Amino acid sequence: MVIRVLLLGSGYVTTHLATGLERLKKKLIEPYGIPLAKYKLPYGLEDIEVVGAYDVDDSKVGKTLYEIAREVMGGEYPVPEELKYVMVRRGVRRNSTDGLGIHAQGLDDVMGYEGCLEALLKEWIDLRPDVIVNVITTEHGEEYDDVATAMNRLKEGDVPATHVYAYVAALYAKARGGVAFINAIPTPVANNPGLLKIMEDSGVTVFGDDGATGATPLTADLLEHLTQRNRLIEFIVQFNIGGNTDFQALTREDRNQMKELTKTSMVKDITGYEVPTYIRPTGYLEPLGDKKYVAMHIEYLSFNGFRDSIYVNARINDSPALAGILCDLIRLGKISVERGWKGTVYEVNAFFMKRPGPRGSPNTAKIKAYYQLLNKFGLLPLHKVRTMV
Amino acid sequence: MVIRVLLLGSGYVTTHLATGLERLKKKLIEPYGIPLAKYKLPYGLEDIEVVGAYDVDDSKVGKTLYEIAREVMGGEYPVPEELKYVMVRRGVRRNSTDGLGIHAQGLDDVMGYEGCLEALLKEWIDLRPDVIVNVITTEHGEEYDDVATAMNRLKEGDVPATHVYAYVAALYAKARGGVAFINAIPTPVANNPGLLKIMEDSGVTVFGDDGATGATPLTADLLEHLTQRNRLIEFIVQFNIGGNTDFQALTREDRNQMKELTKTSMVKDITGYEVPTYIRPTGYLEPLGDKKYVAMHIEYLSFNGFRDSIYVNARINDSPALAGILCDLIRLGKISVERGWKGTVYEVNAFFMKRPGPRGSPNTAKIKAYYQLLNKFGLLPLHKVRTMV
Amino acid sequence: MVIRVLLLGSGYVTTHLATGLERLKKKLIEPYGIPLAKYKLPYGLEDIEVVGAYDVDDSKVGKTLYEIAREVMGGEYPVPEELKYVMVRRGVRRNSTDGLGIHAQGLDDVMGYEGCLEALLKEWIDLRPDVIVNVITTEHGEEYDDVATAMNRLKEGDVPATHVYAYVAALYAKARGGVAFINAIPTPVANNPGLLKIMEDSGVTVFGDDGATGATPLTADLLEHLTQRNRLIEFIVQFNIGGNTDFQALTREDRNQMKELTKTSMVKDITGYEVPTYIRPTGYLEPLGDKKYVAMHIEYLSFNGFRDSIYVNARINDSPALAGILCDLIRLGKISVERGWKGTVYEVNAFFMKRPGPRGSPNTAKIKAYYQLLNKFGLLPLHKVRTMV
Amino acid sequence: MVIRVLLLGSGYVTTHLATGLERLKKKLIEPYGIPLAKYKLPYGLEDIEVVGAYDVDDSKVGKTLYEIAREVMGGEYPVPEELKYVMVRRGVRRNSTDGLGIHAQGLDDVMGYEGCLEALLKEWIDLRPDVIVNVITTEHGEEYDDVATAMNRLKEGDVPATHVYAYVAALYAKARGGVAFINAIPTPVANNPGLLKIMEDSGVTVFGDDGATGATPLTADLLEHLTQRNRLIEFIVQFNIGGNTDFQALTREDRNQMKELTKTSMVKDITGYEVPTYIRPTGYLEPLGDKKYVAMHIEYLSFNGFRDSIYVNARINDSPALAGILCDLIRLGKISVERGWKGTVYEVNAFFMKRPGPRGSPNTAKIKAYYQLLNKFGLLPLHKVRTMV
Repeated sequence: MVIRVLLLGSGYVTTHLATGLERLKKKLIEPYGIPLAKYKLPYGLEDIEVVGAYDVDDSKVGKTLYEIAREVMGGEYPVPEELKYVMVRRGVRRNSTDGLGIHAQGLDDVMGYEGCLEALLKEWIDLRPDVIVNVITTEHGEEYDDVATAMNRLKEGDVPATHVYAYVAALYAKARGGVAFINAIPTPVANNPGLLKIMEDSGVTVFGDDGATGATPLTADLLEHLTQRNRLIEFIVQFNIGGNTDFQALTREDRNQMKELTKTSMVKDITGYEVPTYIRPTGYLEPLGDKKYVAMHIEYLSFNGFRDSIYVNARINDSPALAGILCDLIRLGKISVERGWKGTVYEVNAFFMKRPGPRGSPNTAKIKAYYQLLNKFGLLPLHKVRTMV
Repeated sequence: MVIRVLLLGSGYVTTHLATGLERLKKKLIEPYGIPLAKYKLPYGLEDIEVVGAYDVDDSKVGKTLYEIAREVMGGEYPVPEELKYVMVRRGVRRNSTDGLGIHAQGLDDVMGYEGCLEALLKEWIDLRPDVIVNVITTEHGEEYDDVATAMNRLKEGDVPATHVYAYVAALYAKARGGVAFINAIPTPVANNPGLLKIMEDSGVTVFGDDGATGATPLTADLLEHLTQRNRLIEFIVQFNIGGNTDFQALTREDRNQMKELTKTSMVKDITGYEVPTYIRPTGYLEPLGDKKYVAMHIEYLSFNGFRDSIYVNARINDSPALAGILCDLIRLGKISVERGWKGTVYEVNAFFMKRPGPRGSPNTAKIKAYYQLLNKFGLLPLHKVRTMV
Repeated sequence: MVIRVLLLGSGYVTTHLATGLERLKKKLIEPYGIPLAKYKLPYGLEDIEVVGAYDVDDSKVGKTLYEIAREVMGGEYPVPEELKYVMVRRGVRRNSTDGLGIHAQGLDDVMGYEGCLEALLKEWIDLRPDVIVNVITTEHGEEYDDVATAMNRLKEGDVPATHVYAYVAALYAKARGGVAFINAIPTPVANNPGLLKIMEDSGVTVFGDDGATGATPLTADLLEHLTQRNRLIEFIVQFNIGGNTDFQALTREDRNQMKELTKTSMVKDITGYEVPTYIRPTGYLEPLGDKKYVAMHIEYLSFNGFRDSIYVNARINDSPALAGILCDLIRLGKISVERGWKGTVYEVNAFFMKRPGPRGSPNTAKIKAYYQLLNKFGLLPLHKVRTMV
Repeated sequence: MVIRVLLLGSGYVTTHLATGLERLKKKLIEPYGIPLAKYKLPYGLEDIEVVGAYDVDDSKVGKTLYEIAREVMGGEYPVPEELKYVMVRRGVRRNSTDGLGIHAQGLDDVMGYEGCLEALLKEWIDLRPDVIVNVITTEHGEEYDDVATAMNRLKEGDVPATHVYAYVAALYAKARGGVAFINAIPTPVANNPGLLKIMEDSGVTVFGDDGATGATPLTADLLEHLTQRNRLIEFIVQFNIGGNTDFQALTREDRNQMKELTKTSMVKDITGYEVPTYIRPTGYLEPLGDKKYVAMHIEYLSFNGFRDSIYVNARINDSPALAGILCDLIRLGKISVERGWKGTVYEVNAFFMKRPGPRGSPNTAKIKAYYQLLNKFGLLPLHKVRTMV
């Protein structure tokens, strides 16, 4: 009962996921930050096995995850030995590294786009993943309204790296019979009708887009809290600054837009009216590292015309938070494939994603979505399961 | 279709409730801060009528609510003329004003405890309230485990003012056939088994205890948010300081205890484990007035052993928030009486109260309780009701 | 003993300055926010008289400051009648309104650049200002290294509006014998060697650049506080968002640069080392109005390698703060002219400006600069002056 | 050129001071958090040597500072081997441990008050300290208006432990010729006229009271910042909560008073008027440990009657901050003794202490006091000293 997982992108998130899973198996840490850790699932956390990782950064390709983890986590961090057995393979680049100032080369650069598709598919058939997780750095990507448009773009290679991976996942699912593709970045996959249909028809289960960590789910729940009391939110401001590659990427206008779309649409979905909103990744400052700083300010009208103010400040480790929910998404992905759920699963996305697909789906408060998720999968708390036996 | 309301206590909350309701009737303000304003209820906000108010402060008794509102709200505030028709009557004092430094006299001081009970009952039979709302300043009060104990204490008058009012409400309900009693302060009524049974048997519908406004419901929802992600909360600190009579009262240790009990029990109910907690009304500083300052700090463990920090600061108008939810509680009280629901109604308390009765009931996240409340009363959003017609 | 003042720009700051001064004269308000109000100066606040105002916005030109104040301050604000006697005149536009989305026309549009210079000079000779205050919306502007460069650009009109005003001030000072020019915006004047020399040679006293209000002086003093304790500041983040025209203007990259230069140079001046810094006007959100939201976060190393964190959040009324210090700058300007101080006065700039001229001058903690200012002008507290008599 | 130091109290501060000094000597850390580290003093940090430490806690007496540091700092912290040579001796108890819930015994318990005085004096004469630092847990203590009162109380032993130590310091100074006594806790010594005179006459140099770390100096500088701009501070709230012994002690009302007196007197000293103030150690919560949480809120009036709000939240390591300034106080103490400065030195206290003695001395902004301190000792920055050579 093993879940074989491929990780696209070998940065902070992959490092935390891979090290965290091994430390969990050795009981060195508790499963904090994994939402469903206290629920009974057919697969446990110890069943997850990372069988491959990809990147295009020349300073990473060819190294083991062990070497990368030692660099990322600092010298004193006890990196599990098991990570020595996963080497970072060369992945797809397209334009994904433009402006990031890194030396990068993709399979597409090395052997051309056609060759790259074939090579990847072949590798994946060898690696036999059950779940593919996309955590590459946020890149710009368009939505394709129908299969024909998507197919044209994919054929010509006029797509971002994420879409290439998604397409190869479709080819792989067809060849092998099903796979789960988890898109944890904003580049649209679950919200991409044309691409999603291709994947669905090929038997892929898709979760996406943009893993809901950091301040956005907190904001969602705060908005629900205020809305339940019928308070008029006069405005909401939310700043974010971090020092990891993702924040660096977001200083580029086109990538930033990907994030912003995600976040401002949420507000109206929950409140039911237009709220003047400024929510956006605001800047990059290297010494903040992976622990971002979030500042939020909300003013609202209460009863009898009185005005209240809320200020929230937080320091949040970005990548561990995402790695934690991936532990659940991977397991739910495997289960969904087994249940034959093709295309995307809104109940999963509604809780775990910032922009839950399919396109046009509403955002809801996460607290609400949580109970809908438990219901969809029929999950029971572990302590109740034990009592029932 | 009028709901006749008696208000016990004539301070900030009563002022905001009375002025706010009249301004709503005149369409001068929107119904912000009233949670169910967008739902279809058998009674509208315009149906609520304040028919009487009580206090023991000599500087208030005998004045109209209009005069009091002018003092409380400041000279520039447009106090509705209708408040001229409600005069503040002398109520019950017991020890409720000890240490507050005000000149106060209750009916019990004037005519003895027995006479006071009779006089009140007679007045209420004349005033014919449907709903009685207790918003006197927080006072110390004990829980009576059974009817006999309660009855003994009530007979002897060895009870706080709140319990006297609750008892007269029982006598009134018996005489007249039902009434709703809303206890918006921490002194235990809905959590008071002996007293509650007496009221239930007399036909009183009781909501209580301690109206859930300010930072406590926000904290509850934050805790649920963290718990859903299985983050280990290492500690929670929450300071509160204000400049109204309630904060002044809470500088007295016995009154403060009433609040603290309420708040710390909530944390474990939601998280499921013991969290080191410091939550408490912290101080009194006059110029803050009714707009309290709340500071909160939480640290928790996320995935892979990483630690995040959250800081929340807020300025919240205390009394308007409470007045806003009273607009719903009054209507739900009237409806509950009509449906014959005697004793207390957990689904109402779970959303609206900080310490939901009956005693031993769990606190839940307010966001969850909200949907249970809608369900209990079969409420539908107004815009959906309109569509259905 | 009157100080005749011309105001360039007729927005929030001009409105607050003009209404505040009149309300002070009528003793309707206390002189809060005026740093030297408690010191003995040869000129009192009641001596300041606004004799003219300029703008290029078609919706303002031709109106009185009274009309503008009514629009800016809202209907309930008691605008002093005296403002009816100051009409907004048409000023210089150049590129100062590009991208702001307003209908604007300058004298330079109407009568050509040459004509504009002559017309302005003539008007000023009629109006006889002692002090000219520049508070137009932040515009992009370059520094001219020497007089020749400055003169060339000024002759051709290839300069921002601010520089045109500064040049006309020079012509006016020559004709009339001295004037003070206070540049309260970031466009370089006191830090503009070529332009400053021209002004100095013509007898202008210049204060500038960029009035030190809001979070920047607070940050300066916090940095001094940390530096005095030899704590190693690991980074400093400071976000600013507001809803006034200045924030709107700052969403344009070229204008934003003007502000950023000002702010980041300050950090090294005070700490003595390079601190990773993100300080910048971050966004524009209309409902915040003139009351900006500032969020700041600093981490530093303390003794024995331990790390502390500070978070500052604030809501600050931008324009009143600037108007308040202008009340002093105007008086110090008049005094400096009388003392024959031509060119710029560092001691004034060091306390009152974000980027104190002349170019190359260090920023210091404001708390320190304050005492240097008192010393430079030989100022004594009023209560001591009274005692001495 | 060695400064021999005795440490009274063997808790967090002593641990940080002792470990930090050794790590500095080995160049393992930079001298961050030591205000004068960049100034030229006759004594360097490497000259400081801890020759003895005292406590009354049975779980500490008899252990070496090495053992204690390992317990306090946690297993992974590299405690310097040199600490193995300092053993904790039994000190004076009086009532200093009442209510702290620790097993404690003082020399006074073991051998009576008289014997304790003699034994201590003898030990000190052997240990030959140049500087004695008092960092025992805050205890209640009174001020003695004159020498006679002080002498009576000291003779009878009706004094807190701090006063016993101060008295033995006087006896020691007389016998040996001068010593510096640094009182880093609130129990009054420098502000204690009778006791101070005894010490002065015996040749002791006294610095005190209550080392200025944490939020209080920051608050002082913020107040100065606002006062310099003549803003009317409407109120100031400051909460503090921590998890070390000092916070635990401060939950006892009498000890808390010691702190509160210190803090509220400061506000008026700086602003010049009465500000409604709530500043106080607020609570104790164990998991916060030595890193306290501070929340502060200030509102003030700016120009033209507008109101601004500031919120400051911080997490501050309490003991390292105090240990850092002790590194300077010890050196200044030695220098002052050499210069023959007996009694207390206001310029030292004004910067380094929360309640600068002698009694009646004003608090000033720390930023100001810093320059007065440099001046008093004629200190020059190291980089300037190097240039001059």
